[in-house]
Amino acid sequence: MHKRILLAAAAALALPLPAFAQTAPDVAALRDAALKDDLAWEITEGLTTEIGQRLAATEAEARARDWSVKKLTALGFSNVRVEPFNMPVWVRGEEKAEVLGGSAQKLTIAALGNSGSTGAKGVEGEIVYFPTFADLQAAPEGSLKGQIAFVSHSMTPTQDGSQYGPSGAARRQGPSIAATKGAAAILIRSIGTDYHRNPHTGGTNWAKDQKPIPAAALSLPDAEQLERLLKRGPVTMRLRITPEFKGQGESGNVIAEVPGSDPAAGIVLIACHLDSWDLGTGAIDDGAGCGIVAAAAKRVMDVGQPRRTIRILWAGAEEPGVFGGAAYFAAHKNERHALAAESDFGADRVWRVDYKLPASAKPMEDRLVAALAPLGISRGREPAGGGADVAAVIAAGSAGIDLQQNGTRYFDLHHTPDDTLDKIDPAQLRQNVAAWATMLAIVANAAEEIGPIVTPAP
Amino acid sequence: MHKRILLAAAAALALPLPAFAQTAPDVAALRDAALKDDLAWEITEGLTTEIGQRLAATEAEARARDWSVKKLTALGFSNVRVEPFNMPVWVRGEEKAEVLGGSAQKLTIAALGNSGSTGAKGVEGEIVYFPTFADLQAAPEGSLKGQIAFVSHSMTPTQDGSQYGPSGAARRQGPSIAATKGAAAILIRSIGTDYHRNPHTGGTNWAKDQKPIPAAALSLPDAEQLERLLKRGPVTMRLRITPEFKGQGESGNVIAEVPGSDPAAGIVLIACHLDSWDLGTGAIDDGAGCGIVAAAAKRVMDVGQPRRTIRILWAGAEEPGVFGGAAYFAAHKNERHALAAESDFGADRVWRVDYKLPASAKPMEDRLVAALAPLGISRGREPAGGGADVAAVIAAGSAGIDLQQNGTRYFDLHHTPDDTLDKIDPAQLRQNVAAWATMLAIVANAAEEIGPIVTPAP
Repeated sequence: MHKRILLAAAAALALPLPAFAQTAPDVAALRDAALKDDLAWEITEGLTTEIGQRLAATEAEARARDWSVKKLTALGFSNVRVEPFNMPVWVRGEEKAEVLGGSAQKLTIAALGNSGSTGAKGVEGEIVYFPTFADLQAAPEGSLKGQIAFVSHSMTPTQDGSQYGPSGAARRQGPSIAATKGAAAILIRSIGTDYHRNPHTGGTNWAKDQKPIPAAALSLPDAEQLERLLKRGPVTMRLRITPEFKGQGESGNVIAEVPGSDPAAGIVLIACHLDSWDLGTGAIDDGAGCGIVAAAAKRVMDVGQPRRTIRILWAGAEEPGVFGGAAYFAAHKNERHALAAESDFGADRVWRVDYKLPASAKPMEDRLVAALAPLGISRGREPAGGGADVAAVIAAGSAGIDLQQNGTRYFDLHHTPDDTLDKIDPAQLRQNVAAWATMLAIVANAAEEIGPIVTPAP
Repeated sequence: MHKRILLAAAAALALPLPAFAQTAPDVAALRDAALKDDLAWEITEGLTTEIGQRLAATEAEARARDWSVKKLTALGFSNVRVEPFNMPVWVRGEEKAEVLGGSAQKLTIAALGNSGSTGAKGVEGEIVYFPTFADLQAAPEGSLKGQIAFVSHSMTPTQDGSQYGPSGAARRQGPSIAATKGAAAILIRSIGTDYHRNPHTGGTNWAKDQKPIPAAALSLPDAEQLERLLKRGPVTMRLRITPEFKGQGESGNVIAEVPGSDPAAGIVLIACHLDSWDLGTGAIDDGAGCGIVAAAAKRVMDVGQPRRTIRILWAGAEEPGVFGGAAYFAAHKNERHALAAESDFGADRVWRVDYKLPASAKPMEDRLVAALAPLGISRGREPAGGGADVAAVIAAGSAGIDLQQNGTRYFDLHHTPDDTLDKIDPAQLRQNVAAWATMLAIVANAAEEIGPIVTPAP
C-alpha cells in the first residue's frame, strides 16, 4: 500500500534519470536494506582490533593504511591508493601528577597533544586556580611565573555537541595563554562529560615560535578532587610529563573511488579520518566514520554506476591538526567537487540533516529530506560545514551535507582510553549507513546541478 | 493522622523501655530526621579528599587512622582509639601489557593484590585462553608451562551482588591454580560489570608456600579485545608487572563507642573498613560505609544513652585479607557481642533487611521490619552473615543484621580507579543513614535478649 503510493509519486516526478533509477522506491529499498548492513561494523571491528590505536605518523597508522588499502580493494572500489604527506610527529611519554604535603595523593592525567615536557626531573609548583577559561584570559601578564595553572572550565552534554566549541578553548588555547603569562605548566579539567578516571587528551595550539609548556588534562573526578583540596588551602603539585616532538614523519590519506558516468558532474567526496588518539582504539573517533562512509558507498556502487564519482577519503592525521585534510585540499583543490560530507561524530543515530546547497538543487534537497524522514531524521537549519577533513573543500565552494549524529554521549568517550569497539551500538551504526547510503544514492545520481556553489580558482 | 495512629499503636505495645523511648513514633522521628543527614557525606568527602587512597599498612592508611581518631573524637564518641596490628605489606609497581606481532598494541591491566612480579625484564609468552574458571581448573597439570593463562570468566550485574562469589573465583583462586599448572603469568577479565578501561584489582590467594606468579586484571574492553585477537590466531604478549612484597608493616583498627547503660546486655558492633585499594579513593569501598555507621551512631547517641553499648569499628586492612577483622576478633572474642552488622557494599539504597536473630528477639525483628518499610526496605529470607570484618563475630555466635544495599552498579566501580566521591548519590547515602539509625535505635535499646545465639567459649 505504502509502496504503491510511493511508486505513483515517483512516476509523477518524471525526472531524467541515470543508470541507477533514483525513484523514491529505489532509494527506499536501498535505505531499508542498509538497515541490515554489517560492513560498517566489520570495518570498525577490523581496524580497532587488528590495528588498535592509530596515532598520526606512527608505525600503527602506517599499518592502518596498509590494512585500509587491502580492505577497500577487496570491497571492489577503484583507484585505491595512499597519498602520503609529511607532518611534525608528537608522541606521549610518561605522565604522573601528585599532590604534595598533608593530603599527598596521585591524580590521573593525560598529556595534551603537542604538550611540552617537564623533563625527567619533573616540575613542582603551586596551583593557581581558574574556574573558567575567561578567568585564565583575565590573569595579569607574568602573574603565573613558576606556577601551575589549573583551568576547570566545564562542559555539559548536548545532542548537537555545541558546547565543544566554547569549552574546548580551555584545551586548544589555554596552554598557550598560560605559557604567555609565565606558567611552568598547565592542567585542565578534561573537555568531556563523563566521570571516569580516563582523562580526555586532544590537540593544543601554540603561538608561532612559542616554547610548549607541559600541558595535561585531569579526569573530571580528579579535577573536582583538586577543586575540593583548593577549597581547604593552597595546593602544591609535582608533575612529570615527558612527551617528545620527533621531527617530521610520514602520514597519508587513503583514497578509493566509485567512478561516475558523468565526469563533468563533479565528485561527491565522503570522508572520515583513519588516525586516532593513542589512548583508545579510535572506535567512535573515527573508525566508525570510516566504516559508515565505505559501507554506504559500497551499497550505492552495488546497485549500478552512479552519475557522479564517489570519492572515499580516509584521512590521515586529523587529530593533531587536520594534516590529512590540508594535504587533500592542496592536492585536489582544482578538481570539481560537487559536494562533500564527513562522518566524524561517533556512531550514534543520525537525527538531523543540515546542508549547504545551491538553489538549483532544491528539488534534490526535498527528495533527500523525504527519504531520510523514515530514519527519524529531520531537516535542520544550520549551514553544513563538513567535518574537519572536508571543511576546506566546502569553504572553497563545494556544496555540503552534514548528517548530524546524536552527540549526547560522544564527549563521555571522545579522546579517552574508553573509545573502544564495545561503545558502538550496532543498530545505531546501521542507521548511519542507511542515512549515508540514502544521501549518496540521491546526491551521486541527482540530475540537478549541485556544486560548486562558487567556482574554485583554476 | 498517620502519626496519631502510630502513637496509639506504640502505646498498645507497652514494652519496658530504656532511657531512649523506642516507641514507634520516636523511631520514626529519628529515621525521618536521618533522611536529612549530612554527616555521612562529610565523613566520606573528608576521607576521600584529604587522604585519598588508603592502601593497607601504608603511610596513607596511617594518615587515615589519625584523621579518623580526630573526627570520631570531635563527634563526641567515647573510648576512641587505634588498635594496631601487623600484617604483610604488598604494594603496586609498574604494569604494562602489550600484544606483540602484526597487531602490536598495548592492553590496560592492573596487578591483583598479592601478585608476583615479572621483574624489570618482564615476561613474554603465548596466551592460553580459558573462557571460564572451570576451563582453567580442567587444564592438565603442567600444561601451561612458560605460557600466560587468560581466564575470561564473566559476571552480570545483580541487585544483590550474588555473582561476585562464583565469578570472583577467577581472581581469588585462578592465579594459584594457573601457577600450579606451570603458567608464567595470568591475566583475568576484571571481576566487574562496566566497560571502562579501568581494570578491577582485588586480592588473590596463594597456596601455602606457593611462589606468587604475576597476576593482573584486564578491563572488560581489553579482555574482549584479546578474545577477538585470539579468534584470529595465536597471540603472544609481553608483560611487565613489578609489585613488591615489603615484609611486615603496621595497620590498625579505629574504634569508638557510645557506652550503654546496661553492660550485661552486650555490645552492638557496627563496622566498615577504613582501608581501600590503591587505584580509587575508596568512596564506595568503603568510605561511605564508615560515614553511614558513624552518622547513624551519632544520631542514636544524640537522643539519649542507649541500653547497649554501640561500638563502631573502622577496620584496617580489609582488602588484602581481612587482617583488621581478624585482629578485632582475636582481641575481643571473649566480650559479649549482642549483634554485629557492617556497611560495605557501596552507598546505594538499602532495599532489604536480612537477619540472624534468636527466637526471643522476634518482637524486635517485627518492630524493625515495620520501621524500615517506609524507607522502601523489605524483609529478606537469607541469614545475615555480616560484612567481612564482623563475619567472625557472627559466626562465633553473635546475632547479625544485614542492611542490603542495591548492588546493581557496585561492580561497575568496585576496586577500580573510578571508586571516587562523585559516584555517591547523596540522597541514597542519607537513606542508608536513616536505615542504620532506625536499626541501631531499635537494637541498642531493645528489651529482648538478642545474642549471643551461641555462647562464645570463655
